[in-house]
Amino acid sequence: MNIEIINIGDELLIGQVVNTNASWMGEQLSLNGFKVIRFTIIGDAREDILEALSQAENRAEVVLISGGIGPTRDDITKNTLCEYFGTDLEFHEEAYRDIAELFAKRGYEVTELNRLQAMLPAGCVTLPNRSGTARGMWFRKERPGGGVTHAISMPGVPFEMKEMMLDQVIPELKKIYQPLAILHRTVMTQGIGESFLAAIIGEWENELPPFIRLAYLPQPGIVRLRLTGTGDRMETLEEAITEEIHKLEALIPEYIYGYDEERLEEVLARMLAARGCTMVTAESCTGGYLAHLITSVPGSSAWFKGSVVAYSNEIKENVLGVQPATLKRYGAVSSETVAEMAIGAQTLFRTDFSVAISGIAGPDGGTPEKPVGTTWIAIATPDEVSTHHFKFGDNRERNIRRASLQAMNLLRKSLK
Amino acid sequence: MNIEIINIGDELLIGQVVNTNASWMGEQLSLNGFKVIRFTIIGDAREDILEALSQAENRAEVVLISGGIGPTRDDITKNTLCEYFGTDLEFHEEAYRDIAELFAKRGYEVTELNRLQAMLPAGCVTLPNRSGTARGMWFRKERPGGGVTHAISMPGVPFEMKEMMLDQVIPELKKIYQPLAILHRTVMTQGIGESFLAAIIGEWENELPPFIRLAYLPQPGIVRLRLTGTGDRMETLEEAITEEIHKLEALIPEYIYGYDEERLEEVLARMLAARGCTMVTAESCTGGYLAHLITSVPGSSAWFKGSVVAYSNEIKENVLGVQPATLKRYGAVSSETVAEMAIGAQTLFRTDFSVAISGIAGPDGGTPEKPVGTTWIAIATPDEVSTHHFKFGDNRERNIRRASLQAMNLLRKSLK
Repeated sequence: MNIEIINIGDELLIGQVVNTNASWMGEQLSLNGFKVIRFTIIGDAREDILEALSQAENRAEVVLISGGIGPTRDDITKNTLCEYFGTDLEFHEEAYRDIAELFAKRGYEVTELNRLQAMLPAGCVTLPNRSGTARGMWFRKERPGGGVTHAISMPGVPFEMKEMMLDQVIPELKKIYQPLAILHRTVMTQGIGESFLAAIIGEWENELPPFIRLAYLPQPGIVRLRLTGTGDRMETLEEAITEEIHKLEALIPEYIYGYDEERLEEVLARMLAARGCTMVTAESCTGGYLAHLITSVPGSSAWFKGSVVAYSNEIKENVLGVQPATLKRYGAVSSETVAEMAIGAQTLFRTDFSVAISGIAGPDGGTPEKPVGTTWIAIATPDEVSTHHFKFGDNRERNIRRASLQAMNLLRKSLK
Repeated sequence: MNIEIINIGDELLIGQVVNTNASWMGEQLSLNGFKVIRFTIIGDAREDILEALSQAENRAEVVLISGGIGPTRDDITKNTLCEYFGTDLEFHEEAYRDIAELFAKRGYEVTELNRLQAMLPAGCVTLPNRSGTARGMWFRKERPGGGVTHAISMPGVPFEMKEMMLDQVIPELKKIYQPLAILHRTVMTQGIGESFLAAIIGEWENELPPFIRLAYLPQPGIVRLRLTGTGDRMETLEEAITEEIHKLEALIPEYIYGYDEERLEEVLARMLAARGCTMVTAESCTGGYLAHLITSVPGSSAWFKGSVVAYSNEIKENVLGVQPATLKRYGAVSSETVAEMAIGAQTLFRTDFSVAISGIAGPDGGTPEKPVGTTWIAIATPDEVSTHHFKFGDNRERNIRRASLQAMNLLRKSLK
């Protein structure tokens, strides 16, 4: 069974909006064992919609459509769907009630435009929209060679479409087509690049059972390893994937920080909260980005007391108490300076743990001895200070991100 | 003249990679006066490529293809293009020399796989790739009804594709099709939502000359207003757009911070550098994000001395010198506290300017008097301190971003 996706919207073709809907739908469908064979993106135009539908139907049993049904341009897509599937719009009592309720909750008046959104094709099953006014529409049509084509139209607003896909469309498609059981586990790694990782785990990867596939999903500073098992019995998949993850943990223990899309700042949050510990950061080259990641977790004031961004030597001395002699002898980017920064922040903020970073983010400031990307990180625990040296790349933005992630991973290891 | 875009890659259909190429190509083409009518995304499969090409050619005179020509899966796309355009691969001396040179520079050996990349269709013009090994291929084919179809295949790696589009493909298409002159200017606004902006400038927008169009391009905290003029003479467009921008500046002077994609942190950087002034930030709810934005600008250590992220009242008192009585009487999120934070940071870091932010980012911490989104910002200049009150929304991430942008815009106004 093949699926095609059609996205409708003039704003997609002129790049005013980046089309993330198709990728997200493709990923969710593939994670649930379905095969997507094409995305087609067209403007809000009757002929284009008709042509795209008829061509998609020739190749695929299921056609998912998103976009083109907002309150201001309702008519083209909805009327064209009616034309294609040989039906007419009729007033939909329940849809109207939902719109009126949603508006009452937000304190808005229902306008004529919104009333038009309750006009829906007679010959389809409509899908409630939890967060918006445009309902989904599920059309069924006999195929010339037998069987049924399913065409499902959804809103283009990403979170409305996502709710509809997860709550209604994918579960219903699974009931109809009963794909094989499929199980995904993602192992989150930090501090090692894709090719180095592949060199260490290549043998393990080659010996994976044939029903388990591995995908490397790299992001700056992070590589996600996604294991996907496909088969008849979910229990078999669970056992087999758990066993493979145990083998992987034995191979790269120092790089695995979590599972299934968890972020490093969330892992740290969990560990610090469980132990009732507090922390501070002292940042030079990362310029506050590490503090930003840590405070992106709601409730972080329970374990995070704050940060000193010391972007000049003067501040390193006056606020963090780094010795002028240390700066003079070893420089700002050194094991000695970063250790004193960590201790200074720990003392000033009276915390259990402290993380300090000093490096050359670039593009300027590099020297032959300390090229752009050179970075020192210190971790101060209640008992000791350790310092760590890294050579990142020459991209400022990526250096800032990699240094921050690396610092969190080092703190995580100290907390274990 | 119509253009279609075809992107090839299995990884696009399963959502492993979000397809940003099509949106970017669509935007660039539209900015240059071309009309894109469809994107088609397919997997690395011969039949799909052949079908997509032939259907696209029926609708469009120019077909742009990206993806499918990396070193590991060269053959399907390239061979299919040869099949479609009735030609064969041949060894391309110059392409091989380029690959060998690129590899020598990076210190790699040329492999057999790379040698295969120098095998290119005899019946096309090849396009050099400044940053990679896969050349572009430009095919010309007579159309049944007269005229020529242009099919241009490019790499899928975004920066390689972008260089090729900007340096070679778009200039050549402009030579062939000579679209009308087109001119874009973007006005950057901060601190006002799209609908409020529309209410103020609606009349101006309605009176724009017919050859100038306006697009609202909103991002969290920022709305870009893009003016696009199309006509025969570039000089006329320049004059007319400049005149309209002057009118706009008179309507919303306090919200316009810059032009043509400039970021607020870059505007501040320019102003502070020009005046030889320094600054510091004292952040509570933004948690270091403001410092991060400011230090994302290379060379920012010249004007930015650092930040204190004071995520607890204790730090506001002990490090920034906020009076315990102030915190007790007015609370951490108040005009009084944020003013003392700004002065405290200015004194501690000895800077000319200081920005302090305290607010309730959410999701927790709101009260009936101070709901989530309540934010105070203080700007300290060498002469005075001003404080400003805002009610943002209920999304933590967006509140952090909006508060940081708003603070930069307030500092910008103080610097004027």
